Amino acid sequence: MQPTETRAALFDSDGVMLGLTRSPAPNPEGDVGEVIMAHVEDLTTRLARDFPQVTPSAVGLIAPGIVDDREGIAILSGDLRWVNVPYRALAESRLRLPSSFSHDARAEGQAEFQLGAARPFSNVVVLRLGARIAATIYLDGRLHDGGGFAGGLGHSIVNPGGSPCACGSRGCLQTVASTGGLADRYAELNPGTLATGDEVLELARRGDVAANLVLSNALDAVALVVSQISAVLAPEAIILSGGLALTGSQCFLPLRHRLNSLLSYHRRPLLLPAAFGRDGGLMGAALRARAAAAAAA
Amino acid sequence: MQPTETRAALFDSDGVMLGLTRSPAPNPEGDVGEVIMAHVEDLTTRLARDFPQVTPSAVGLIAPGIVDDREGIAILSGDLRWVNVPYRALAESRLRLPSSFSHDARAEGQAEFQLGAARPFSNVVVLRLGARIAATIYLDGRLHDGGGFAGGLGHSIVNPGGSPCACGSRGCLQTVASTGGLADRYAELNPGTLATGDEVLELARRGDVAANLVLSNALDAVALVVSQISAVLAPEAIILSGGLALTGSQCFLPLRHRLNSLLSYHRRPLLLPAAFGRDGGLMGAALRARAAAAAAA
Repeated sequence: MQPTETRAALFDSDGVMLGLTRSPAPNPEGDVGEVIMAHVEDLTTRLARDFPQVTPSAVGLIAPGIVDDREGIAILSGDLRWVNVPYRALAESRLRLPSSFSHDARAEGQAEFQLGAARPFSNVVVLRLGARIAATIYLDGRLHDGGGFAGGLGHSIVNPGGSPCACGSRGCLQTVASTGGLADRYAELNPGTLATGDEVLELARRGDVAANLVLSNALDAVALVVSQISAVLAPEAIILSGGLALTGSQCFLPLRHRLNSLLSYHRRPLLLPAAFGRDGGLMGAALRARAAAAAAA
Repeated sequence: MQPTETRAALFDSDGVMLGLTRSPAPNPEGDVGEVIMAHVEDLTTRLARDFPQVTPSAVGLIAPGIVDDREGIAILSGDLRWVNVPYRALAESRLRLPSSFSHDARAEGQAEFQLGAARPFSNVVVLRLGARIAATIYLDGRLHDGGGFAGGLGHSIVNPGGSPCACGSRGCLQTVASTGGLADRYAELNPGTLATGDEVLELARRGDVAANLVLSNALDAVALVVSQISAVLAPEAIILSGGLALTGSQCFLPLRHRLNSLLSYHRRPLLLPAAFGRDGGLMGAALRARAAAAAAA
């Protein structure tokens, strides 16, 4: 599933968002690094035009997939069709600004950990349930990213032999609980209809039976993965973000109920909504851009 | 499932095992702390009698369940029927020796990490598949024990609604892949027969169809949990110990095969056998006893 839009925002040094643009994502064809950088340059030009009084001091880029945050390299994204693209270096040479390039869910996790819902905890997982599913893991106050590979829970298998996933495996959490997964599972029950994941969640809220079945299966799978995270890591809290989590009690009440029946001798984590709603990734990208500016100064 | 035997060993300060005794475990009835300590005292008396030339300098106790290694307290073990028993303090006052009390699987994990198969790695999980199932987690060279709750994978659910587990839940890894689980699942297929988990593994090796089905289901479940550990933590290696792992290629070859089909974008961990066979726990207890002696000196 290719992302459908790019979001770009301008932050001041206090973390206040001055403006946000949403634009169609470019097709990742040909020299994908070149295509993406031309798009990024276009977005920065637009923000510069809209905010002529602001002189940008750094750029923070984020993307899904397997990302080496330290080196700023996109190691692999199957559906974005890139392998080992050094986006940080490309951005610095093209935009002539200190830049960072990092993983979108980990950027969001950092924002939640430094400034949001994860802040009170030193052992905490931020689990993004959006178009992609991935987790950011803090243990004893330190990020554990496994060189970019940790927290890859979208492709944790919740139903061996289940629906095929873009990754080549079957029954991944992604296939039932991502927004795309919600849409696909709903379309299976209602052939000929087209509803986005967010629309399926809204249909469920209004009592649509098929949408509620899809939601219930998604929550079963999320509960299973949350119970596994608890068994492995015993975090104090798990912060949920993304489409499913934004439904509030539609997500959290049944999830707590399911989790209680799955856990036994484990530490029961607090389940809490993310503080930054849909903007956690942008906020994290801004934090990393600010760090890049500080490192360059 | 109650443990059926207690193992006690005498080590010299270089970690050489001078002697090992195996004795029936006491019934954890009445004042369980008192019963266990009388048993421990009896075992130390026997070792002192057998090795009159040795003057013991410290005691290292280990047990399953939820254990606070730092404070030396057995927080909870359902089947051992203890809650918050301060075994370290009890041992120190009864035996008048520096003592440690810690979790059996983590003691084994420590031995493997300091001296065994986990030694080359800084991000590594030691997964014990024995009478109990539990994991020891090292990240960036540091133990992550979640206050005693991390690594509780025996009660990670591999089959929602599956066989009932002693913990009160259903379909835990423990119910299919522990030695007791292997025995129970085999007995279901062969009513009236009684075979221990080790006997089931031996039957499987000899071509018994039911035993091979039980083993295959166990390996499916272990592969699923190993894939989840990989998705969450992305360790470089996972070291396997306990009954299943001691079968060697009967375990490792099919497990690698299953894991390959479950993982997609994840880092693929090396799967390696533990270096200390059945003695990793004793070796870890000795390491912790030596540390207790050093701290008291």
